[in-house]
Amino acid sequence: MKTYLDCLPCFMTQALRAGRVATNDEQKIKKLLDEIGSLIHKIPMEQTPPETATIIYQKISEITGNPDPYKEVKEENIKQVLHLYADLEQKVKTSDDPLLTSLRLAIAGNVIDLGVNKKFNIIEDVEKILYQEFAIFDYDLFKRELKAAKEILYIGDNSGEAVFDKLLIKELGKPVTFVVREVPIINDITVKEAKRIGIDKIAKVISSGTIAPGTILKYCNDEFLDKFKNADMVISKGQGNYEGLSDVDRSVFFLLKTKCPLIARNIGVKEDDIILKAINLVDRIGI
Amino acid sequence: MKTYLDCLPCFMTQALRAGRVATNDEQKIKKLLDEIGSLIHKIPMEQTPPETATIIYQKISEITGNPDPYKEVKEENIKQVLHLYADLEQKVKTSDDPLLTSLRLAIAGNVIDLGVNKKFNIIEDVEKILYQEFAIFDYDLFKRELKAAKEILYIGDNSGEAVFDKLLIKELGKPVTFVVREVPIINDITVKEAKRIGIDKIAKVISSGTIAPGTILKYCNDEFLDKFKNADMVISKGQGNYEGLSDVDRSVFFLLKTKCPLIARNIGVKEDDIILKAINLVDRIGI
Repeated sequence: MKTYLDCLPCFMTQALRAGRVATNDEQKIKKLLDEIGSLIHKIPMEQTPPETATIIYQKISEITGNPDPYKEVKEENIKQVLHLYADLEQKVKTSDDPLLTSLRLAIAGNVIDLGVNKKFNIIEDVEKILYQEFAIFDYDLFKRELKAAKEILYIGDNSGEAVFDKLLIKELGKPVTFVVREVPIINDITVKEAKRIGIDKIAKVISSGTIAPGTILKYCNDEFLDKFKNADMVISKGQGNYEGLSDVDRSVFFLLKTKCPLIARNIGVKEDDIILKAINLVDRIGI
Repeated sequence: MKTYLDCLPCFMTQALRAGRVATNDEQKIKKLLDEIGSLIHKIPMEQTPPETATIIYQKISEITGNPDPYKEVKEENIKQVLHLYADLEQKVKTSDDPLLTSLRLAIAGNVIDLGVNKKFNIIEDVEKILYQEFAIFDYDLFKRELKAAKEILYIGDNSGEAVFDKLLIKELGKPVTFVVREVPIINDITVKEAKRIGIDKIAKVISSGTIAPGTILKYCNDEFLDKFKNADMVISKGQGNYEGLSDVDRSVFFLLKTKCPLIARNIGVKEDDIILKAINLVDRIGI
């Protein structure tokens, strides 16, 4: 997905929000906004927003001296969701359609996104998303591909969200490779949080090699690129991964809640919709 | 009121919104955002936000070649409110407290503000504000000062809003000088719209001389400054005038709805509150 004009003020807003998490020093935050402002004219509009966000969050770390501003918030989110885990697992087990319930919960987890200007209440959001109608619902295709798949590549997004992903990964019932970011960016998951959550116990955890808050293929490492090319099925969580992968030429299932009006428009749905969207699938399976 | 860090991304958002009203040319809007971005580091934080907004809206006119982007919208707003005028006047006349009802309506008109990121529905907002509780309500002081005043200076704000101001000016029952901006900026009122609305029939209309979307004394003309110094009572409408006049050393009654979280915080109230706030009054009347 390309950068829209609306992304430009949003980069400033993100810098302010993250700057405030990273430091209490107003002078440093002012300097950060000055520098982001002066970068605006250098942003190529054909570039995906997470590519620009990479530069912005690097500036935040550089100016505030804090390489992982959301460290404590990530841990807090993880703790909160782990506390709910047994109940959530029970919801899946007692459901009429455990796979669908775990898909819904994986989307519910996607509200824990500190890159967007949205408040969330994880308990309320879970209840809502369990009953919310999907705006795009390629569930039959998802089940069919899942049945045929020998290996699944599951691209993670935010840290707390991955606790929910665990439930879905278990329901998939196939060997899964779970993909994380190379370094901390916003509240995205890295190897460290994946291990903290115990994803390494149920899936192989690899880094995509990207330092962006999304999956940008040209910055990914060979191990990821090989898996991405050859996996029978790719599940991509969240907005950042959608922005990076929306135009790739292989089949992908996107699983997300739209929290940004531009991404919603790009997908053709409304803000706050929930999505299970398949791309390139018809060609791939030859029907 | 000084500039807050939060104002900086907001300047970019305002530029995008106004740029889109001024032109359909995405390249020009991109150039506008590039230039505003590169101006961020030059903004003195001790300057009031309307002073910075002046530069931003000048850039919008310069780059888009449109000196009055909101011209049509202003006319549309004025027409819509003039259409309601007879009904509103009836509401005031049949009210238990016509002065208070006209004060409430004057605040209702303040929702027609195209400088903020808020949608409004004038008919619904009027009904709501007629019954909304004031967060600050210096009404007794207002009535006392009004009774004693021989001449009132009434500083207008937005164009459509001034139709509501007419109702209040009539209820004041004293000679009123109505103040407008020198040139079109956002949807603020100038002499042209004041005459279109017929304010010149019930008050003396003068320009403050300012080209900012607010009253910045150092940029005002002598005629205004003389009136501002000597008027028995000053009524200031809206956020832009509050931002410019919040720290002056004479008594002022501020009449507004808080549509910006920073202005609300500066006043000590919440967003979407309604305010009739007196400053410097105790000193002035010696009690």
